Amino acid sequence: MLESLKEAVFEANLSLVRHGLVLFTWGNVSAIDRESGRIVIKPSGLSYADMKAEDMVVVDLSGQVVEGRLNPSSDTPTHIELYKAFPKIGGVTHTHSTYAAAWAQAGRDLPCLGTTHADYFYGAVPCARPLTKTEIERAYETNTGLVITETFKKNDYAACPGVLVHAHGPFTWGRDADEAVYHAVVLEEIAKMATLTKQIRPQGALIYADQALQDKHYFRKHGKNAYYGQEKKS
Amino acid sequence: MLESLKEAVFEANLSLVRHGLVLFTWGNVSAIDRESGRIVIKPSGLSYADMKAEDMVVVDLSGQVVEGRLNPSSDTPTHIELYKAFPKIGGVTHTHSTYAAAWAQAGRDLPCLGTTHADYFYGAVPCARPLTKTEIERAYETNTGLVITETFKKNDYAACPGVLVHAHGPFTWGRDADEAVYHAVVLEEIAKMATLTKQIRPQGALIYADQALQDKHYFRKHGKNAYYGQEKKS
Amino acid sequence: MLESLKEAVFEANLSLVRHGLVLFTWGNVSAIDRESGRIVIKPSGLSYADMKAEDMVVVDLSGQVVEGRLNPSSDTPTHIELYKAFPKIGGVTHTHSTYAAAWAQAGRDLPCLGTTHADYFYGAVPCARPLTKTEIERAYETNTGLVITETFKKNDYAACPGVLVHAHGPFTWGRDADEAVYHAVVLEEIAKMATLTKQIRPQGALIYADQALQDKHYFRKHGKNAYYGQEKKS
Amino acid sequence: MLESLKEAVFEANLSLVRHGLVLFTWGNVSAIDRESGRIVIKPSGLSYADMKAEDMVVVDLSGQVVEGRLNPSSDTPTHIELYKAFPKIGGVTHTHSTYAAAWAQAGRDLPCLGTTHADYFYGAVPCARPLTKTEIERAYETNTGLVITETFKKNDYAACPGVLVHAHGPFTWGRDADEAVYHAVVLEEIAKMATLTKQIRPQGALIYADQALQDKHYFRKHGKNAYYGQEKKS
Repeated sequence: MLESLKEAVFEANLSLVRHGLVLFTWGNVSAIDRESGRIVIKPSGLSYADMKAEDMVVVDLSGQVVEGRLNPSSDTPTHIELYKAFPKIGGVTHTHSTYAAAWAQAGRDLPCLGTTHADYFYGAVPCARPLTKTEIERAYETNTGLVITETFKKNDYAACPGVLVHAHGPFTWGRDADEAVYHAVVLEEIAKMATLTKQIRPQGALIYADQALQDKHYFRKHGKNAYYGQEKKS
Repeated sequence: MLESLKEAVFEANLSLVRHGLVLFTWGNVSAIDRESGRIVIKPSGLSYADMKAEDMVVVDLSGQVVEGRLNPSSDTPTHIELYKAFPKIGGVTHTHSTYAAAWAQAGRDLPCLGTTHADYFYGAVPCARPLTKTEIERAYETNTGLVITETFKKNDYAACPGVLVHAHGPFTWGRDADEAVYHAVVLEEIAKMATLTKQIRPQGALIYADQALQDKHYFRKHGKNAYYGQEKKS
Repeated sequence: MLESLKEAVFEANLSLVRHGLVLFTWGNVSAIDRESGRIVIKPSGLSYADMKAEDMVVVDLSGQVVEGRLNPSSDTPTHIELYKAFPKIGGVTHTHSTYAAAWAQAGRDLPCLGTTHADYFYGAVPCARPLTKTEIERAYETNTGLVITETFKKNDYAACPGVLVHAHGPFTWGRDADEAVYHAVVLEEIAKMATLTKQIRPQGALIYADQALQDKHYFRKHGKNAYYGQEKKS
Repeated sequence: MLESLKEAVFEANLSLVRHGLVLFTWGNVSAIDRESGRIVIKPSGLSYADMKAEDMVVVDLSGQVVEGRLNPSSDTPTHIELYKAFPKIGGVTHTHSTYAAAWAQAGRDLPCLGTTHADYFYGAVPCARPLTKTEIERAYETNTGLVITETFKKNDYAACPGVLVHAHGPFTWGRDADEAVYHAVVLEEIAKMATLTKQIRPQGALIYADQALQDKHYFRKHGKNAYYGQEKKS
């Protein structure tokens, strides 16, 4: 079932290691087959070295395991909420990558300070509100998803493909597993750049990138007038 | 004698290098065979490249060498105090890993600022009190162990498998040598995240992770209701 | 056409990856054949792993593609302005390398704080003024080049082979593609050193390197009295 | 002439690259044959990839090239002053390693904040005074050596095998080329730890490591009562 999607999700999980975003078994990538409504996700707590494509677990949108001998990632309910609320996405990534996690721990939105950020994320990458005690104690992983989707009531998930979960770490998404990982790599890099930018101007306020510059960079890569790369996107 | 434990301790020492936690001959890992009360530990000052499994030294709980041509690590008396005071542990690691050592040099407990920390260490990782002049000058390595075990009179060593030795660096432990190294890697990473979190919020106070969130993350991985990974832990 | 220049530009682009200056398809290197006025540049948005020397695109100084099946880098008009204004240069590099980009995001000139900087860049590496809204919205990449050349009306482009584009990142240049990359590597390193120097003296003002020391280091490597290396430069 | 010393110096220079202390042709290592008073040093500006053991240059203590087709490192006069003033040393290393250079740029002594430092450097690693304009303009490299040896009129070069040259970078030394490189690696690491320690305690004063602790760590590794490692040192 969904063998090529399993292969893609498996490879995307391995690429988290190659990009230096995860230690040990941390982090997970999933993808959805929108036709069947089934999600392929990394098994929980399995080492990347031992993992095979066929170990990927298939679940449905209610969280039931449809195929697979192993437990799915404990973060599966969070992924499910994102797939339910964000109809255009095909892949989700969660990491504890160092700089993005530090911004999540600081409880701060990651502001857009330059064109590297604006090339991929339109506006600040928001930090979700802290979960309440009740939200933590009951259905924690589902509530983590719900606090993300709540955050995107006032943000456009398609233009800002990632979020910081308060005191936790980043989730990112994209049209497929690969793009979700791509956005996780970019988010870590812009979180590092922003941390350094603060160090260089510790006294002064940060200068947010000019709105016209953000628009220019975001829209030369995205949308119907994009002219970056080899193919026109529509 | 204890050949498979020597192999495990040898491999665990090499993994310190692979994880980037040590330079040159710095750092050491040991493990104990609880039945015989014998400890296997890295020899002192030997380069990782030249070291073989059979070079591991066997000592008893009084510090006497039971087997081995080489001197055991000069930190052996510290390891011994930990094995004596913490009956459930099977392995101990000592490193001077950069970020954890910096917190030790700052003389500060490493606060729990997020879920990466809470997944493995319940509450702050304490910084032990400085040794007195007398403690330094006589039986220094034994006293280093005793100041650690003193610190854990008011902390649970099983729930917080590591400590910062003041102006020195981290010791970590676990059920075996591998888990002790695992905790050393995690401690270095959360020390880095905490350093960055401080840089992102230099003016404001750090926000400690919510207690409910710490409980959730720690207990979804540890104890009888754990549900992370593939096997129930008891 | 210009096959050996294509090979050189291709290799210079790959060396950006080896030096850790770029992620994914970010960054680009070009070189000019001054005789024909033709520029060889990396294609837009192509992954480094898939790229071949023959994929390099040839454009003229008006920006017209002279040879090549692929779109040239979207930054091509910026490169062209530099070649037009700086007659002695043969290669140009653009990256979003982390520390240099952080200084660009901070909107600060990179001051000369020591001899590592003075060995390659004479005086501060300037941060160009922000582009106006109009400059961003019309002919953005050309205007990026023009704001750089404007900056060098009061700086010597031969003695300071690089610039920070405000809220964006560095451009560097040199006598050929290789030297442009070399300067990009140096700029990233001195931006890192300067960031750390600020952290070590957060309260005090930075100490700019003594002018005599800057002169000594710059001129022992450059100009007719240079004595560093194996060949006299003239 | 001195073929085995050339081999040792060549390998020591390559190890600077392996330890991540140098970019391109930066940095240099030398060693002295005390019997003949001849110094073997890296040639100036030659890439590490192209360099062979036989390219090492032999000079005497007056700086005259005794053997070798290539120019010796432009820093040779500095090395010579160190060999003349410090009779017990056999090797010298110079790098622009990032963190040590940042402390040199900050013009600050590197304080002893913990045992990693105390294991190898007894007391602060001093930052030499800035050179005067005259010292820079005439016999700069010789004067760089003289300002170092001046610094060690009130420091013990055997107990503190390194220095920060103001606004420049570190020089380290040891009984041979390998030990000089070893000390360069340690100096970079303790400079990094000290930078991070300052970030963790930005408001409070740094806590210098207790003198008894410094003594303990330095003297358990050095001198006649040393007990670290496998061989008694005398």
